[in-house]
Amino acid sequence: MESPVFGITPSARLRPSPFYEATLAEGVTAFTTYNHMLMPTSYGYPEEEYWRLLKGVSQWDVACERQVQLKGPDAGRLAQLLSPRDLNNCRVGQGKYVPLCNHAGVLINDPILLKRDDDLYWLSIADSNIWFWARAIAAERGLKVEVSEPDVSPLAVQGPKAEDVVASIFGEWVRGLKYFWFRDTEIEGIPVTVARSGWSKQGGFELYLMDGTRGAELWNIVKEAGKGWGIGPGNPSFCERVESGLLSYGGDTDEATNPFEVRLGKYVDLQVSDDVIGIEALRRVQAAGPRRHQLGVVLDGEEPTRLGFNWHPIASNGQRVGALTNCVWSYRLKKNIGFALISTSCVAGERVEVLKDGDATGGTLQELPFL
Amino acid sequence: MESPVFGITPSARLRPSPFYEATLAEGVTAFTTYNHMLMPTSYGYPEEEYWRLLKGVSQWDVACERQVQLKGPDAGRLAQLLSPRDLNNCRVGQGKYVPLCNHAGVLINDPILLKRDDDLYWLSIADSNIWFWARAIAAERGLKVEVSEPDVSPLAVQGPKAEDVVASIFGEWVRGLKYFWFRDTEIEGIPVTVARSGWSKQGGFELYLMDGTRGAELWNIVKEAGKGWGIGPGNPSFCERVESGLLSYGGDTDEATNPFEVRLGKYVDLQVSDDVIGIEALRRVQAAGPRRHQLGVVLDGEEPTRLGFNWHPIASNGQRVGALTNCVWSYRLKKNIGFALISTSCVAGERVEVLKDGDATGGTLQELPFL
Repeated sequence: MESPVFGITPSARLRPSPFYEATLAEGVTAFTTYNHMLMPTSYGYPEEEYWRLLKGVSQWDVACERQVQLKGPDAGRLAQLLSPRDLNNCRVGQGKYVPLCNHAGVLINDPILLKRDDDLYWLSIADSNIWFWARAIAAERGLKVEVSEPDVSPLAVQGPKAEDVVASIFGEWVRGLKYFWFRDTEIEGIPVTVARSGWSKQGGFELYLMDGTRGAELWNIVKEAGKGWGIGPGNPSFCERVESGLLSYGGDTDEATNPFEVRLGKYVDLQVSDDVIGIEALRRVQAAGPRRHQLGVVLDGEEPTRLGFNWHPIASNGQRVGALTNCVWSYRLKKNIGFALISTSCVAGERVEVLKDGDATGGTLQELPFL
Repeated sequence: MESPVFGITPSARLRPSPFYEATLAEGVTAFTTYNHMLMPTSYGYPEEEYWRLLKGVSQWDVACERQVQLKGPDAGRLAQLLSPRDLNNCRVGQGKYVPLCNHAGVLINDPILLKRDDDLYWLSIADSNIWFWARAIAAERGLKVEVSEPDVSPLAVQGPKAEDVVASIFGEWVRGLKYFWFRDTEIEGIPVTVARSGWSKQGGFELYLMDGTRGAELWNIVKEAGKGWGIGPGNPSFCERVESGLLSYGGDTDEATNPFEVRLGKYVDLQVSDDVIGIEALRRVQAAGPRRHQLGVVLDGEEPTRLGFNWHPIASNGQRVGALTNCVWSYRLKKNIGFALISTSCVAGERVEVLKDGDATGGTLQELPFL
């Protein structure tokens, strides 16, 4: 199940994270690239790393989850233009998961929006260039807002014991943080925003490091504090996120995917405002009904699959009906599982065939999440 | 000088190219990512690959050089809005190297524009998301143009013997193609656009494959045809492009770089049209004079450097004056060389200090290209 080993040629187009040296010291063995940064994807023991997240606590270099900062008198107006989720009730100190769409209603990112002040927002983005997008909209509409990339790099602490670790570092107040809410603080003089957040369903926090020169220090503070709880290095877990039904923008979406197709309809408020980008297209999609939806597939067979680059066609009764957008061996289900982006004519419980690596493999559709 | 070897974890966010299987068969050993695709960067013999490009002919998987297609009655208008280079005299069948800037005059890409028809353009882009950018501008300005990513993947044939190889495949007419001009053709039923182009100064062509299912076939046609000229696999050469003074967008540029700073002023026509994006900012920059410029640095010492991820600070008389944006061992000059993005107060011939890997190394500024 491990990936093939190739060199990644260093270049200034790919930025190392502030935690890069710390992850090398931990023995990182594999990376992906994300927002033009290297993100660790393995420390060589994938199953051990998985169970650490499920049963204990794990620390992740997710600096590649960059911030698009909107600052100025029109920052709030731009944030609302960019997202079809109603932000009117978003308070300072609160975060919200927001789809971003283009004018055709196509999903172009799914960040966490952090309202830091009435005139200061961060979009903590998935893997697509929202600086260009936001700057284009701001400039074309003549808004008074500066769009920039601040020196902010998240370190995630995830797993059922994460709260104990983070409380031991920053204080008991972190236990009172509501989901996606955040607060600025510091530790040993390092400025950090602590948010209850993270790309797993095992609970935890993201520590937004606000001084890129101090990555190794923050990494080691968390590592030391976590020793009593058995903390170790990890990364967003392909297996756990698929089991938990978490969307990967760009992995599970294509150039035509709208939020309704990938279970984000609950974050779309169609009446929010007529000038929100994509809102008219989204109203049309909702009125007509989306043509695809996202389901889980449990594949037949007991042989753990290898991770792959491609989507795999899905057929039903000999007709192509969609694609498997990811596929991974579930350590808990002991099955290969994945997400189907598939015709709404196909529903949970149905049998399908997945054309993968030259073979047709049977599978059963089910609702997400798997677990 | 080889890069550290890590795994690249497969995921659908990183697309393999149509030539991926062919490059695996050739023994590719390292990749980078570029426009969310894997691009081969080594076949394990960097010096041999370099001399093959300089003395012979080399074939490269540069499918990651994606096309942003502009199609519709306003395609030409959008193309001109996006670039400050005057496109009025661009003819069908002609390509042009064009800077793209944002509203602040900052460089956001430097594609080859291919005018395929009066209502059909391709921007053959460097490593940044111009689909989002072009769609934002088109939609905000109400233009009648569709922005899409067609199934088009370049395979480069580069080196002094490239013309012989490409002529042997497609016919003697290719010898008459002027630089950046192109023509549609086919070989064994595979649709291909042949352009005189490529990211080296050793001469050659790019074959734009227009059917992604036939990458291995096209790769092997070139491989077979090139045997008599000693063709072999290669990739954009870090060494050759630095020696030749070729810019890498995103590697040699930052969030504030304008075209005048990086030797692209000759591609900026300040009188082209008032509604071109960034033109007012570019006029201000030109009037005030850019604060930085791009020079070469020849570093002291005879020990080949390792490639790195970071820019390196450059100091003159103890003051920080700029950064070394790349650094590579030149096989021809037998020196470490790189590009400086540096204060215009520093000029060719001056001595500087580069702070690299914890040490200060002396160097001498010179005009680009090196060779």
